[in-house]
Amino acid sequence: MAGGDELKLLGSWLSPFATRVKLALALKGLSYAEVEEDLCNKSELLLRSNPVHKKVPVLIHNGTPVCESVIIMQYIDEAFAGAGPSLLPLDPHERAVARFWASYIDEELVIPWVRSFRGTTEEEKSEGLKQAFAAVENLEGALRECSKGKGSFFGGDRIGLVDVTLGSLLTWAHAAEVMSGTRIFDPARTPLLAAWMVRFDELDVTKAVMPDVGRMVEFKTKQARALAAARASDSK
Amino acid sequence: MAGGDELKLLGSWLSPFATRVKLALALKGLSYAEVEEDLCNKSELLLRSNPVHKKVPVLIHNGTPVCESVIIMQYIDEAFAGAGPSLLPLDPHERAVARFWASYIDEELVIPWVRSFRGTTEEEKSEGLKQAFAAVENLEGALRECSKGKGSFFGGDRIGLVDVTLGSLLTWAHAAEVMSGTRIFDPARTPLLAAWMVRFDELDVTKAVMPDVGRMVEFKTKQARALAAARASDSK
Repeated sequence: MAGGDELKLLGSWLSPFATRVKLALALKGLSYAEVEEDLCNKSELLLRSNPVHKKVPVLIHNGTPVCESVIIMQYIDEAFAGAGPSLLPLDPHERAVARFWASYIDEELVIPWVRSFRGTTEEEKSEGLKQAFAAVENLEGALRECSKGKGSFFGGDRIGLVDVTLGSLLTWAHAAEVMSGTRIFDPARTPLLAAWMVRFDELDVTKAVMPDVGRMVEFKTKQARALAAARASDSK
Repeated sequence: MAGGDELKLLGSWLSPFATRVKLALALKGLSYAEVEEDLCNKSELLLRSNPVHKKVPVLIHNGTPVCESVIIMQYIDEAFAGAGPSLLPLDPHERAVARFWASYIDEELVIPWVRSFRGTTEEEKSEGLKQAFAAVENLEGALRECSKGKGSFFGGDRIGLVDVTLGSLLTWAHAAEVMSGTRIFDPARTPLLAAWMVRFDELDVTKAVMPDVGRMVEFKTKQARALAAARASDSK
């Protein structure tokens, strides 16, 4: 890291998108100041730094903000090319494949998965879970292909952009299993991904950065109760 | 372009996403074979080349497919770095800003805009148009900032990734104005963007690549009639 570089991350412990940036910064060996945002009362700095989406994470590098987790990860890779391993492969085609799957995870897995626990009807929740499982099956095929049959990581021998994008969701996966018994990365359906998850969980960087599953379960349980109470009150 | 490189584009004249790739290839001065897909009866080659989304455009480079228009444009920039001008800026922060707005156009403008003419209720259509106008207002601010007050192009003095991503939609914009009188880039609301549209339309590359507005109006009129007839038949 060049002398005088100042990195500040506006994040939240419960945001997997902020976790992605923390994982990327840790992999590159970059030090940074962390600002924990209250998502119900966002700071002036956050609103000013991301006026369009008003969301975490925002990485502020020497006063200049960069928004959107997958874009921030690519920024870190390009602005600190000399620091730590590259998050994206070097080959243009492999880079395109990594961008494809990173985008796929956000559009085809995260959105329906969120609907599976925040949907307003049981039908909507069940349809969300079905779509999330279909996405996980496609990701199983992607892992087979990206890891060239070795099944280690999407990045090959070490984790890269796609691993971090998907891996940031593992606290949700573990919390969902505790809360509802649903295994999104089920060894019976997607054995390569289930084994990938175990490998990802065992990495030093994961242990250092990922949020605690117990804390997430406690938070999500309270959130689900509050949501149910609000809906019951609305329907009165 | 390196000797022996073979580029094949699976596209459709009416897809703005395929138009993006054509604009990018033309800007880089790359020659390619064009395969016009029948979107109601997709080719085996398309289904095999993009098994996940099964959509155009797909760029096949020496037999290897790359999918998703914004990812393909970045691929072209990286795989043919020596050919023609760069589509993305060189500075890491400016690259992140370009990626941010390219993604914003697809998520916040295209999706609600499509809803404004394909929505099932008048309320849904009106809400889609309202969201599309809000996105265009944010893009007006982005153009002011990216062009550093000169208001020429998002890419500065010449067009780049964001210009191509947005410019590919101009045939839709002109067709919508003919069909419904709606001006998505209205000089009264967004004067910089309205002037940008005129500049974009006047470029040689635009004249060479963009689909004909009259043909698009004819196609969209037939499509709207067919959709209305199908819905009327469903509701009987």
